[in-house]
Amino acid sequence: MSGRSLDPQLQRNAVRTGGMRASAIRALFAVVNRPEVVSLAGGMPFLDSLPLEQLAAETGRLLADDGRVALQYGAGQGIPELREQICQVMALEGISAHPDDVVVTIGSQMALDLVTRIYCDPGDVILAEAPSYVGALGTFSAYQAQVVHVETDDDGLVPAALEAAIAAVRESGRRAKLLYTVPNFHNPAGVTLSVDRRAQVARICAEAGITVLEDNPYGLLGFSDTVYPAIRSLDPDNVIYLGSFSKTFAPGLRVGWVLAPHAVKEKLVLANESAILNPPMFNQMMISRYLANFDWQSQIKTYRELYAERRDAMLAALETHMPAGTTWTRPDGGFYVWLTLPEGYDTAAMLPRAVTERVAYVPGTAFYADGFGTRQMRLSFCYPTPERIVEGIRRLGTVLEAEQEMLRTFGVGSVSRPDLRLGGPTAPAPDAV
Amino acid sequence: MSGRSLDPQLQRNAVRTGGMRASAIRALFAVVNRPEVVSLAGGMPFLDSLPLEQLAAETGRLLADDGRVALQYGAGQGIPELREQICQVMALEGISAHPDDVVVTIGSQMALDLVTRIYCDPGDVILAEAPSYVGALGTFSAYQAQVVHVETDDDGLVPAALEAAIAAVRESGRRAKLLYTVPNFHNPAGVTLSVDRRAQVARICAEAGITVLEDNPYGLLGFSDTVYPAIRSLDPDNVIYLGSFSKTFAPGLRVGWVLAPHAVKEKLVLANESAILNPPMFNQMMISRYLANFDWQSQIKTYRELYAERRDAMLAALETHMPAGTTWTRPDGGFYVWLTLPEGYDTAAMLPRAVTERVAYVPGTAFYADGFGTRQMRLSFCYPTPERIVEGIRRLGTVLEAEQEMLRTFGVGSVSRPDLRLGGPTAPAPDAV
Repeated sequence: MSGRSLDPQLQRNAVRTGGMRASAIRALFAVVNRPEVVSLAGGMPFLDSLPLEQLAAETGRLLADDGRVALQYGAGQGIPELREQICQVMALEGISAHPDDVVVTIGSQMALDLVTRIYCDPGDVILAEAPSYVGALGTFSAYQAQVVHVETDDDGLVPAALEAAIAAVRESGRRAKLLYTVPNFHNPAGVTLSVDRRAQVARICAEAGITVLEDNPYGLLGFSDTVYPAIRSLDPDNVIYLGSFSKTFAPGLRVGWVLAPHAVKEKLVLANESAILNPPMFNQMMISRYLANFDWQSQIKTYRELYAERRDAMLAALETHMPAGTTWTRPDGGFYVWLTLPEGYDTAAMLPRAVTERVAYVPGTAFYADGFGTRQMRLSFCYPTPERIVEGIRRLGTVLEAEQEMLRTFGVGSVSRPDLRLGGPTAPAPDAV
Repeated sequence: MSGRSLDPQLQRNAVRTGGMRASAIRALFAVVNRPEVVSLAGGMPFLDSLPLEQLAAETGRLLADDGRVALQYGAGQGIPELREQICQVMALEGISAHPDDVVVTIGSQMALDLVTRIYCDPGDVILAEAPSYVGALGTFSAYQAQVVHVETDDDGLVPAALEAAIAAVRESGRRAKLLYTVPNFHNPAGVTLSVDRRAQVARICAEAGITVLEDNPYGLLGFSDTVYPAIRSLDPDNVIYLGSFSKTFAPGLRVGWVLAPHAVKEKLVLANESAILNPPMFNQMMISRYLANFDWQSQIKTYRELYAERRDAMLAALETHMPAGTTWTRPDGGFYVWLTLPEGYDTAAMLPRAVTERVAYVPGTAFYADGFGTRQMRLSFCYPTPERIVEGIRRLGTVLEAEQEMLRTFGVGSVSRPDLRLGGPTAPAPDAV
C-alpha cells in the first residue's frame, strides 16, 4: 500500500475525488442557524409568504386522489404535464420550447452536474464569469474541468474579454467546451447581462464552437418591469438552459429543469436515469398542482416586492456604514450584492472576526476557481428582514473599522494572503488565466 | 469539425458519454403501462396496501406545522432525525451504525452513482454477481468502469469464483476497486447469499483490498422468518451499505441512503452537495414522520405476505407452463424469479413476440455487462395480482411453444445471436472475462 493516505478506503479513490472540496457555503450552514448572527451569507429564499395551509390541503388531495401514482416510480425525463407547464414558465422570458426537450432534475444543481458529466473530460475548459456561482465551481472541479474566468462589469460578461479568453484558451492548446453564465441578477455579482451583449455572447460562442450553459434561477425576480430575453431565445441550438422552482416557489422539493438541444436532451435523460432512476414523482406532481391551482405569478410578485425592499435597505445601510473606497453592485433583482473593499482587506481571514460580531457573509474567494476575490464578499439580502439587514451591515461596518485600525497599525498585507486582488469587481486579464 | 457525428453538440461530448446507454428497463416503461399486457418486467412495488388517507393527513400536518423548514434548503448529508431512524432500520439486520456515517440520497440509485464517482477511474474493475442489477451496470458503464462478473449459484456469489476472478483481474494488470453485491433476494437472480458465504466474501475482499458495496433494497422483504445479517455487520470498515425506502415503503419520494466508513462518508457528503446541494427536505421529513407515526413494520409484513402469495402463484404456474429443460430460481423474498430456457432460445429476440402475446419480461442480457444471459429472463412477481401472474406465465408458455416450433423447423441458432450462453444461471469462467 502506498503512503498517500493512511485510510485504505481513500487509497482506492478515483483521481476525480481529489477535486471534491468542501464549499464555503457548507461551512456556513451552522452559522446561519444561530439566531444571534445576522446571516448575509446564505441564499435561502424567505418563505414566510407561502400559503402553507392551502399547500397542506393540496398535498393532501394529491396523495388522496393520486397517491399510487405520486408514490410510484416514474420516467427518467419527468412527467409530461410538468414539462409542459415549465415551457409556459420559460415563455415569460421569450423562450419557445417543446416539452420533449425538457428534463426534470433535482434542483438545477443536478442539471449542472449532468451537463458537466456529458460535456467535460478532465482538463476541458469551462469559461465562467468572474466571479461565478460557488456551487457550479464545485461541480466543475468534481469533474476535473478547468475554469477560466471572464471579466464582468456592471452590464455582465464583457464580450471583448470573452473573445480574448477563448483565444487564450485555444492558444494554450486546451479545449473550451462550455460558457457557464448567470445572465440575470448574477450570483454572486448581482449584475445583469445587457440585452445587446446577450446577442454578442450567443454569437461569439456559436462561432467558437462553445455551448452556452445559461443558468437562470433568478430571472423572474427582477425589481423593475424590464423582462430580459433568455440567451436561449436567441440561439436555441447552442444554448442549454437551466431553470428552477427553488427561488420562484421554494427549494424544499428540489425541482429544477434543463432545456437542451435534442441530441443533448437524449444524453441528459440517460444520465438522469443512471444517477437517480427518476426525479421523485410526488415532488413533480406537487409542483404541477401548484402551477395549475395557485396564483404562482402573484406569489412571484410578492417575492419581488419583498426582496426589493430588502435590497433597498441593504444599499442604504452600505452607504452609511462602509469605509471610504468600498464599492458594491446595485442589483436590479435576485438575492445578492457584491462588495469590494479597499486594498489591504482579506475577507476570508476576516470572517471569524465578523462572526464574533454576529454578522456573516461569503468571502469572495469562494466564487473564483483561482484564488481571486480576496477583498470581495457576497452579501445576501434575501433572508433577513430589512431591520436585521441594516443591523448586519452596521456590524459589518464595525468589523471593518477594527480591521482598518489593524491595517493602519501593522500595514497593508499583514493580515491577508499573497496579493492576488484586483482593483474592483473585475477578473484576471485573459493572459493571466 | 470531425465526421464522428453530424450534431455539433455531440461532438463536444466527454469520452464517458459514450458509455451512457439506454437500459432495457427504460424501453419497457411504455409496455408496462398498457393494461392488456401482463408485465412481469418492471420492479414496481404494489402500493395498494398503503394507508393513503392517513398519509395525506400526515403530509398536510407536515406542511402546516413545519412547512417553512420542509420547503427550505437543508444540509447535504440529510437531516439528523431521519439518519437516526435509518440506523434503527438497519439494526434489524444486525448493523450497528452511527447516524454521522449515514448520507441520505435520491433513492439508493444515487448512492450507487456517488460511490462509483468516488472510487472508479476509467478502466477500474468492479466485480459483480452474474447476473447483476441492470441499473448498477448502467451507472458503472457511465463512469467507464469495467464490470467482471462472478459466478453465482442458489446460495449467491460463489467464494471460490470470487477468488479466481480477483486473481484473473490482477493478472490482467487491472485494478478491482469494488465488489458490487445484492446479498438478499437478488435482483435479478432471486437468490440469497448464505450466512457462511457472507463471512467468506467479507474476508476475501478485505484481504484483496477490495471494498464491498452491499446493495440491500429487499432485505426486509423475506418470506420466511430467517433474518440474514448484513455483510456490513461483519466488517464495518470495508463495507459500504446501500439502503432504500422504495420497496419497504414507496419509491415516489426517492429516499435512499448510504452507510459508509468515516473517510468515505466525508467524500459522499461532498459529492452529494456537488450533485444536488441537498436531498429534498420535504421528502426526508415525510419519511421521518412515516417511521415515527405509522406502524411501518406491520406495513412491511403486509408487503411480505402479498409478495409471498405472488411468488407462490408464479412458481406454480411455471411448473405447469414451462417447456422441459427450463430451470428457474425459487426466491425466498424480494421481487424476482430468474429463468433459464433450454439451448436455442434467445429471450431478447423473443420479446417483441411475447409483447404481441401480451406478456412482458426483461431479457437476461440486460443483467450482464458482457453479452451473456441470452437464454435467460427476469420475471417479476411484485406488481400484478396472482391471477394476472398465472395468466402471464400461461401466455409466456404459449410464446415458448411457438418458439420451440420454430427452433424445430429452422434449427437451433436460427433465431438467436452468436452462442454466448451457458448451461444455467451461471457466469463466464474467470478466464473468459
